[in-house]
Amino acid sequence: MKAGGAIELGESKSTSSTPKIGGVNRGASILDFILRIIAFLGTLVSAIVMGTSRERLPFFTQFLQFRAEYDDLPTFTFFVVANSVVCAYLVFSLALSIFHIVRSNAKRSRIILIFFDTAMLALLTAGASAAAAIVYLAHRGNVKANWFAICQQFNSFCERISGSLIGSFVGVVVFILLILLSAAALSRR
Amino acid sequence: MKAGGAIELGESKSTSSTPKIGGVNRGASILDFILRIIAFLGTLVSAIVMGTSRERLPFFTQFLQFRAEYDDLPTFTFFVVANSVVCAYLVFSLALSIFHIVRSNAKRSRIILIFFDTAMLALLTAGASAAAAIVYLAHRGNVKANWFAICQQFNSFCERISGSLIGSFVGVVVFILLILLSAAALSRR
Repeated sequence: MKAGGAIELGESKSTSSTPKIGGVNRGASILDFILRIIAFLGTLVSAIVMGTSRERLPFFTQFLQFRAEYDDLPTFTFFVVANSVVCAYLVFSLALSIFHIVRSNAKRSRIILIFFDTAMLALLTAGASAAAAIVYLAHRGNVKANWFAICQQFNSFCERISGSLIGSFVGVVVFILLILLSAAALSRR
Repeated sequence: MKAGGAIELGESKSTSSTPKIGGVNRGASILDFILRIIAFLGTLVSAIVMGTSRERLPFFTQFLQFRAEYDDLPTFTFFVVANSVVCAYLVFSLALSIFHIVRSNAKRSRIILIFFDTAMLALLTAGASAAAAIVYLAHRGNVKANWFAICQQFNSFCERISGSLIGSFVGVVVFILLILLSAAALSRR
């Protein structure tokens, strides 16, 4: 009688805790989905704002017109490419995120997601911080290296490229949270 | 009789699979430990090589001496700081890595490790790629922005700062592997 009671207790315990863990994981998966949409919008806006930034100065000589465009600097091209790649990845990852809302106990797909999230975090951080280094140089210049602050001439261009960094850095923070969420979900499985 | 057999089978199955999973996790923890040492050496060498890079040119005028040092450019200072912080973190994380070799079923400490690993991956990538953007500029210059390639004068300085990037990027790859290893260990628990 006693042994039978223990088995019943064990069974009822396991059936009551599994849906609870499943519920927590489902909540985490929904948060994961929302965060991915935020990161998607951030990287999309970053890529568009940087990719469309150009400025022509109102004065020009016979041979030379003063203009600035994002692809004058290879680092900004890399920034646009990195943001576009991450943006496209986020669209595909939404499918896996929906799959995790439905099947909150999935294991292998979560590990795959963590791996790609980590790689995309590295790519996005690389693009954002390389661009930030050049934007800083454009604003402040460097006396020792004899590099001039081009923002004194190209004012609106500089405002655009500085603004475009924000979406990317929001994306970086979101990716760190996403990896943490996935790890927590894996441990609760 | 039949039911008892099934229970026995279930029991023997569970006792044989737990040490196996523990063994795999222990192996993964040892690999984790080795990878951390590699990343530690990489970031340490990067910080030292960049931090000690300076060059004086053999010619100088009465008022001006031509010299280049890593802290002439704020990005390189950030690179040294980022590498030093990550290097120090890796030393502390070795303790947790040893703890995981001993107790391969630990859960909460692995999540903490994944979180900090991810943050350090972002910091290291930011430092390495910002420095890479400036090193590229030093080598190639930029005609449009009127920034000259300073590597034409400061040859040995440029070789050092370029070389110092290698250790950092090795560290970035190792961190991606570390996060993947931790996630896999969490899922096997």
